[in-house]
Amino acid sequence: MKIRVGIVGYGNLGRGVEASVKLQPDMELVGVFSRRSGLKTVSGMPSYAMSELESFKGKIDVMVLCGGSATDLIEQTPMVAKHFTVIDSFDTHARIPEHFENVNKAAKEGGNAALISCGWDPGMFSLQRVFAESILPQGKSYTFWGRGVSQGHSDAIRRLDSVVDARQYTVPREEYLEQIRQGQTPEVTAQSGHLRECYVVAAEGADKAKIENEIKTMENYFVGYETIVHFISQEELDKNHKGIPHGGFVLRSGESTEGTRHVVEYSLKLDSNPEFTGSVLTAYARGIYRLAKHGGTGAYTVFDIPPAWISTHSAEELRAHSL
Amino acid sequence: MKIRVGIVGYGNLGRGVEASVKLQPDMELVGVFSRRSGLKTVSGMPSYAMSELESFKGKIDVMVLCGGSATDLIEQTPMVAKHFTVIDSFDTHARIPEHFENVNKAAKEGGNAALISCGWDPGMFSLQRVFAESILPQGKSYTFWGRGVSQGHSDAIRRLDSVVDARQYTVPREEYLEQIRQGQTPEVTAQSGHLRECYVVAAEGADKAKIENEIKTMENYFVGYETIVHFISQEELDKNHKGIPHGGFVLRSGESTEGTRHVVEYSLKLDSNPEFTGSVLTAYARGIYRLAKHGGTGAYTVFDIPPAWISTHSAEELRAHSL
Repeated sequence: MKIRVGIVGYGNLGRGVEASVKLQPDMELVGVFSRRSGLKTVSGMPSYAMSELESFKGKIDVMVLCGGSATDLIEQTPMVAKHFTVIDSFDTHARIPEHFENVNKAAKEGGNAALISCGWDPGMFSLQRVFAESILPQGKSYTFWGRGVSQGHSDAIRRLDSVVDARQYTVPREEYLEQIRQGQTPEVTAQSGHLRECYVVAAEGADKAKIENEIKTMENYFVGYETIVHFISQEELDKNHKGIPHGGFVLRSGESTEGTRHVVEYSLKLDSNPEFTGSVLTAYARGIYRLAKHGGTGAYTVFDIPPAWISTHSAEELRAHSL
Repeated sequence: MKIRVGIVGYGNLGRGVEASVKLQPDMELVGVFSRRSGLKTVSGMPSYAMSELESFKGKIDVMVLCGGSATDLIEQTPMVAKHFTVIDSFDTHARIPEHFENVNKAAKEGGNAALISCGWDPGMFSLQRVFAESILPQGKSYTFWGRGVSQGHSDAIRRLDSVVDARQYTVPREEYLEQIRQGQTPEVTAQSGHLRECYVVAAEGADKAKIENEIKTMENYFVGYETIVHFISQEELDKNHKGIPHGGFVLRSGESTEGTRHVVEYSLKLDSNPEFTGSVLTAYARGIYRLAKHGGTGAYTVFDIPPAWISTHSAEELRAHSL
């Protein structure tokens, strides 16, 4: 019997989960739930209105929540966790403790298990931080993001006057990565560790110097960062900057005895941020499903899931072939 | 109350565990058990004969077994698991299933928990393989070892006539790493993926061409590999090749939808193979200790341990600071 998966929300992330479930031999898609009705899905799975959700109790094993953190998940995950085993990718770091409490309460009330904040950061990057810090307690950790598209920064540029379209890439500074790999432990902040590279389509006759200045002086987005602005045509943006690539690096440099240094590095190079995030969610949907089968209720994170539980392989197979 | 750790075997790995435990705020060393009596330890912890081991029941929470796989662990781990929670770094891949069964039986008899085959490969590399394969079921995995010293290959060279000393480095071929990082999926075998670089001290007047030929034609060690032999002086070997560095790479290149590719890479660059392996063992000693506290008995691997359990931090702290 396959694990029956429901998807809540059908943007890029929802489609990423849909594609990923199709690759998993032990899972099947039951349907997607959305505020919009009559959705056509890529795989042909049926779509339902959010109001029909509860009627699927007993027909869906795990609900994968694919909305945005700020507006959707903060309310949806607790709501859905009352009725189903759920997983989400809640990524507003500062609000994770609050979200955890809300989901924990709702999931416990419903006797369900819920995995929150799963993806690559938070998610796989978080795991790597915990592994490396536990192994090398004496050391320094680093996280770099990119080269990848930041939707938030792209949107901020698009809101400026005389800007037709824009794409912003967050780019880690290679020189720091090299220093850390060589065993150095530089002081790096988010600002000093990254460049912000912007591709901007300006309206005809726009004052480009003014736009560039407005970008570079935007508080909370660009101030403090080295920011590079390229003005390009809409054609060029459509041709070369339509993807949603992302990725990043987690490194830890630590000593086991004085002068004996070890560098641990984990990196992702992703053609599609939402498709990879969706793939992580899908693998961990299996993990939280199994945790629920073992009687777990309440909220959990990737830190709580034994790695074997996200695999399709049995413990024997894993020991024989992957260990 | 700290986790009380005993070490069985006091070679490089045992000293690595000793150093690592000193860095862990929640652990203390009780003593080292060895066939040799009257050992002087680096930290000053007392040493005991193996025959005294059983008298430490109730005084040691986890025994970390630090012997060699082939001769020591295959017998010691089951023996010690009858009386204590244990962890080992058994790394003879082909015999893991057999070792698991033996340890499982002994640990269950004693009502104890045992974690086998923990280190970096098997260990951290195994975890990375399972994570990446579960997330990207459609793809190709690669493991490269090095640049690092292979003790087995170094010993094999030293056994040749007219060889005074030798050190062999296993070196991954950078060109394959680059291809994989760029999204290609080349066919790579252990032989084609690695070089073997040998630093050899020949006896005075020795026939170096003959030694080089004997190395390159050694079955099971060098045949099939591109092998480079450097003859150097004992002074140079002592000066530049006394360390035991190692490391390696685990990569997976996979697609989530056709043409949308993701590359996951994990790498280690270690100044000391035994010190890093010892550090992994120490962190996972905490993990198996907690699993035992939760009532687990029998044999386990890193796949079975929730990552949170190897950390000194509470679940709340991990969610707030590492997620």
